[in-house]
Amino acid sequence: MTVFRTTKRVEFGDTDMAGIAHFANFFRYMEAAECDFLRARGLSVKLDWEGQTIGFPRVSASCDYVSPARFEDVLDVTVAIERIGVKSVTFAFEFARAGVVIARGKVTSVCCRVDGGPRLEAIAIPASYRARLEA
Amino acid sequence: MTVFRTTKRVEFGDTDMAGIAHFANFFRYMEAAECDFLRARGLSVKLDWEGQTIGFPRVSASCDYVSPARFEDVLDVTVAIERIGVKSVTFAFEFARAGVVIARGKVTSVCCRVDGGPRLEAIAIPASYRARLEA
Amino acid sequence: MTVFRTTKRVEFGDTDMAGIAHFANFFRYMEAAECDFLRARGLSVKLDWEGQTIGFPRVSASCDYVSPARFEDVLDVTVAIERIGVKSVTFAFEFARAGVVIARGKVTSVCCRVDGGPRLEAIAIPASYRARLEA
Amino acid sequence: MTVFRTTKRVEFGDTDMAGIAHFANFFRYMEAAECDFLRARGLSVKLDWEGQTIGFPRVSASCDYVSPARFEDVLDVTVAIERIGVKSVTFAFEFARAGVVIARGKVTSVCCRVDGGPRLEAIAIPASYRARLEA
Repeated sequence: MTVFRTTKRVEFGDTDMAGIAHFANFFRYMEAAECDFLRARGLSVKLDWEGQTIGFPRVSASCDYVSPARFEDVLDVTVAIERIGVKSVTFAFEFARAGVVIARGKVTSVCCRVDGGPRLEAIAIPASYRARLEA
Repeated sequence: MTVFRTTKRVEFGDTDMAGIAHFANFFRYMEAAECDFLRARGLSVKLDWEGQTIGFPRVSASCDYVSPARFEDVLDVTVAIERIGVKSVTFAFEFARAGVVIARGKVTSVCCRVDGGPRLEAIAIPASYRARLEA
Repeated sequence: MTVFRTTKRVEFGDTDMAGIAHFANFFRYMEAAECDFLRARGLSVKLDWEGQTIGFPRVSASCDYVSPARFEDVLDVTVAIERIGVKSVTFAFEFARAGVVIARGKVTSVCCRVDGGPRLEAIAIPASYRARLEA
Repeated sequence: MTVFRTTKRVEFGDTDMAGIAHFANFFRYMEAAECDFLRARGLSVKLDWEGQTIGFPRVSASCDYVSPARFEDVLDVTVAIERIGVKSVTFAFEFARAGVVIARGKVTSVCCRVDGGPRLEAIAIPASYRARLEA
């Protein structure tokens, strides 16, 4: 499985009073990068798929910060699937600037049937969706 | 060391199109809860302390999501110090609604001298700051 | 109609590299204050009301910034209904710190029937909802 | 003065439980578009300029919403300078999807000397900065 690459620019509103990208924004960057990855495969984190609406709520997320990112930095982001389970998928991300890794993160999501109601029901990732993920 | 308790209401703007609090916001909730904890001890994540400005940039953050939080939920948040090292501190957080845990997270920060320049220099947590943390 | 009062603390993640609360966050503060106002009347920006789901998407928002707000400032926010039309409502907000106004804003929303579909259909504000708004 | 064009994709985390891009995010989109505009001219909202650090805190911001934007929409954003005063600049923005305008906004900023202290001092926009703005 090849690694997917995208970029993310640090916007002014992403910074905090320490003058660096606020740590919580890396989770938004990871989600945007995951969506870029999925879009390139005709997938999404929420979509109609074979007659039902499915989504991928997150069950776990983590990030290790090596060096701060700053306003107008353009970060190179690599996206890799670390693991695909029956119902879940774990993405691993690496953020680099000028070839130097500044942060690494992981996000695990569970495939759920979305019916607009209050409960989220975990389901097996549809085989056709999984096939594209693994493409 | 006793556990510190605070609350956090899920605002409309914290939700996403899945109808739940967006996962990245839990990292903002954790930071706000940590600041509540620190404030109760006369501390902060960025402050002038004995003649120098110190800050606590995050080096690691993680969250496990058990159940989704929804608009107008008032979450009970517990804050505990899991570990204080020479230069770093790790906080552990638990989010509950109506007595049921819905998420758990951890954030590790490193004490840095902040001089406005591009580099952040890690320093030992000042003894007087540490004493209040451990109070 | 009396003015409603609430407060809002500026969190660390609300600041930007200029060391002040990022201007866009005042729109989140206004929405949170509006929701506080509505909640005090048993209302909300999205709720089931007499057999249908209604929401209040924004059609206009503005803010004038007099002085910056900073980390850990506790802002006093006043919420007043400036105008209630057949389908829309305009709220006016004032932010003060230590008795000095630092920002003023307005938000106009339109009452819509929410059916989960792609279109939002504007409807007259239900009479019973309006009565509580004007209480 | 020609109009500058850029694009902005609506990310998942930009949406709210109404299923649309949260209204406050349009102010972040405007700022990102303004920064794109400035960057194309070798400028920025915060930078060292002829021996001093200058920034452009916002004094006014507004947006009118015609139609909602949704997840994965790619919005065409036009940026135009509406007015340059001695100390301030007003940008006008238009958001369109598939050729149809969905929102219009304005942001006025004041040029300030940034010295890291608690006060922001408004200054005349440096002539050389203004010349590039008007290019």
